[in-house]
Amino acid sequence: MADALKIGIAGLGTVGSSLARILVERRESLASTCGRPIEIVAVSARERKRDRGVDLSRVAWFDDPVALAENPQIDVFVELMGGAGDPAYAAVKAALSRGVHVVTANKALLAAHGVELATIAEERGCLLNYEAAVAGGIPVIKALRESLTGNVVSRVYGIMNGTCNYILTKMEKEGLSFAECLKEAQRLGYAEADPAFDIEGNDTAHKLSILTTLAFGNRISADDIYLEGISNISIEDIRAAADLGYRIKLLGVAQRTDTGIEQRVHPTMVPIESEIAQVGGVTNAVAIESDILGELLMVGPGAGGNATASAVLGDIADIAKSRPGAQMVPVLGRPAASLAPYKRAQIRKHHGGYFIRMTVEDRAGVFANIAGHMAENGISLESIVQHSRHHSDAAEPKTIILVTHATMEDSVRRAVAAITKEGYLAGEAQVIRIERPKSA
Amino acid sequence: MADALKIGIAGLGTVGSSLARILVERRESLASTCGRPIEIVAVSARERKRDRGVDLSRVAWFDDPVALAENPQIDVFVELMGGAGDPAYAAVKAALSRGVHVVTANKALLAAHGVELATIAEERGCLLNYEAAVAGGIPVIKALRESLTGNVVSRVYGIMNGTCNYILTKMEKEGLSFAECLKEAQRLGYAEADPAFDIEGNDTAHKLSILTTLAFGNRISADDIYLEGISNISIEDIRAAADLGYRIKLLGVAQRTDTGIEQRVHPTMVPIESEIAQVGGVTNAVAIESDILGELLMVGPGAGGNATASAVLGDIADIAKSRPGAQMVPVLGRPAASLAPYKRAQIRKHHGGYFIRMTVEDRAGVFANIAGHMAENGISLESIVQHSRHHSDAAEPKTIILVTHATMEDSVRRAVAAITKEGYLAGEAQVIRIERPKSA
Repeated sequence: MADALKIGIAGLGTVGSSLARILVERRESLASTCGRPIEIVAVSARERKRDRGVDLSRVAWFDDPVALAENPQIDVFVELMGGAGDPAYAAVKAALSRGVHVVTANKALLAAHGVELATIAEERGCLLNYEAAVAGGIPVIKALRESLTGNVVSRVYGIMNGTCNYILTKMEKEGLSFAECLKEAQRLGYAEADPAFDIEGNDTAHKLSILTTLAFGNRISADDIYLEGISNISIEDIRAAADLGYRIKLLGVAQRTDTGIEQRVHPTMVPIESEIAQVGGVTNAVAIESDILGELLMVGPGAGGNATASAVLGDIADIAKSRPGAQMVPVLGRPAASLAPYKRAQIRKHHGGYFIRMTVEDRAGVFANIAGHMAENGISLESIVQHSRHHSDAAEPKTIILVTHATMEDSVRRAVAAITKEGYLAGEAQVIRIERPKSA
Repeated sequence: MADALKIGIAGLGTVGSSLARILVERRESLASTCGRPIEIVAVSARERKRDRGVDLSRVAWFDDPVALAENPQIDVFVELMGGAGDPAYAAVKAALSRGVHVVTANKALLAAHGVELATIAEERGCLLNYEAAVAGGIPVIKALRESLTGNVVSRVYGIMNGTCNYILTKMEKEGLSFAECLKEAQRLGYAEADPAFDIEGNDTAHKLSILTTLAFGNRISADDIYLEGISNISIEDIRAAADLGYRIKLLGVAQRTDTGIEQRVHPTMVPIESEIAQVGGVTNAVAIESDILGELLMVGPGAGGNATASAVLGDIADIAKSRPGAQMVPVLGRPAASLAPYKRAQIRKHHGGYFIRMTVEDRAGVFANIAGHMAENGISLESIVQHSRHHSDAAEPKTIILVTHATMEDSVRRAVAAITKEGYLAGEAQVIRIERPKSA
């Protein structure tokens, strides 16, 4: 059997501890599968004393993760600290610069510095693997980077934030408000005390930016993504969606258009009978549409110590199975030097269906006026639903729901602005984009 | 850039022609991604003159695929002829024995000779890749063989035959009989003139046997699988399933039990709100349940020239990205020599829920008698549905549908045998197993 693959792990939180336990407990079966043992030789973490369910007393301890990355003993540097900046950035850069393979679960780091790090890895002939960085245990990086080689991807989209999907699922199932479900998610540890990063879509955007680059060959651009979170989604939207045969999901969507690449994160209506609509709770899902393979959907756990550790382990095993310097997998799917600049398509040019929910004063001519504004903007309607909250009181505000056929976002925004100007709306119009699987 | 990877393709049917076209048309982007060009240097096919939409006039032509496999020019032998026997078997063996990498889409060959071929590949230090052999474009081999390294799999199951799924989907959607839908599938080219291999489950069994080995580390055993096809499924079953919240799918299921490994292919009721229940038409799906990652479901095209060619291309690209002799991926997930013998669990020991549909004479005491037989065999019931076909005629046969809680198959078989003996059944009792995703 070949020499052991020596790894250093920086970061022993939930994922790092799971990984260390698995590497120790399954040492023999891993050695058999990989053709050589995988050995933890060094670790770095903030708290030395914590019980992590694994004996690391004989492993070298580094207070400084950069020093760990620079240690000549290690073959693979596993970065599980998180964060776009130092020490993660400095440590990963130090390892790659020395030609040491890196495995990371750090989406923020890749979103910010992925192209630079890929360039170093390719120059030094080492691997930078990051399956766990997007959609946890779902092997979407492998699918895009390896399985789909030769395919031209047209669209990639998915549910990539478990917190948001948990909240939306719970709102629908239990008829609760966004605020109530967020509180419950926080109680269960699915949402942070400051939940903005998740619920406003930033987390999804980081992940999406990596998939976009793998799919379309552009440089990573995580800051230039259209973002809309879910805090604005009401139980009325969810019910109206269900009545019309849709379910609301927070999707990250990247697609190639005539004017550039659309990268957008927003609440989205998906057909209720589609596979992705069934993905509930904290589960993630990613769909890839390409010209040779067709449609591929993968559903699985998007977070959690074990699921993430499993993805990290798969990345380590890929390195263990190859001989040093033997692989030439371009980190971002294409050689980093050949990645194209990111050309952002404007959201105003987005073409698709729209759901529009408005609460209006119940007076004569309102509906005709709305219909007129739609027609003026060239928008044709697939469904129209109008109902009062209570049948007894004719003077109460009415809800009008429109579903458009595929149209340009700009037309919808103009029509809604014109309607808003009329003064008969109670509150703002709710506009939600519709996304359909290619086959639906 | 490194030297070109030289490939020889044996078999230029739908898949082989697609592959050749893609390799020629996307030569440059493939070379950029893989770090070296991929060049077709030789082919073998029965008809030389056919128009395949690609110019192969400058490529060496072999009438004998074994001679192609033995040609010293080629780095990779791509086997797309199909069939468990010669010439596929002889040709693949010849290539591997010379240390030449092989890519194949041939499930029958692997089901019959996979362990022997894996042994040769590992001895010679070459790769045997076969992503296209199971579930076409879905990267399930990669998921099991690479991504899930270190995981202990408990169950793998899926829809792996497009013909059967097309028929079952059409029966449900259009209320047509099995025979009518089969005829339509044949008209559309989804089913063979002799459809037995698909509809009796043999095709699914071949694919399942490969997944079983990757999941559980046993030697491949495709002949020792419990098989039940879909020709016995009636529109009444499908309607009754829907009424009870289920949909019928032909699943291949492999799971580890206390008494061995269950490998079974049969019509199965899955919860109608589960993701796999939404997989319609010729689409395939594979679910993997494992202890670290959790549940992973992949949905995609299971057949078709392009989807299959995409999987073959991914396999070739994996070889192109590695340097010769550089990979040590065990062909069947573990070194072939360490695969355990297959110990078959008896279907009579299967533990799960059952749907039982019986047509009975409408006489007093029948229902009580049925309930008695169930109780005697220790079977507890989740649902009971009893209805006459027409309300007007009380003397008509009645349909009784039972859904059991999880129980032993043996108990169900005994109960049904005892009920049958009573003489009040019109025709035979229909028994369909229920399969639930772990999370359902």
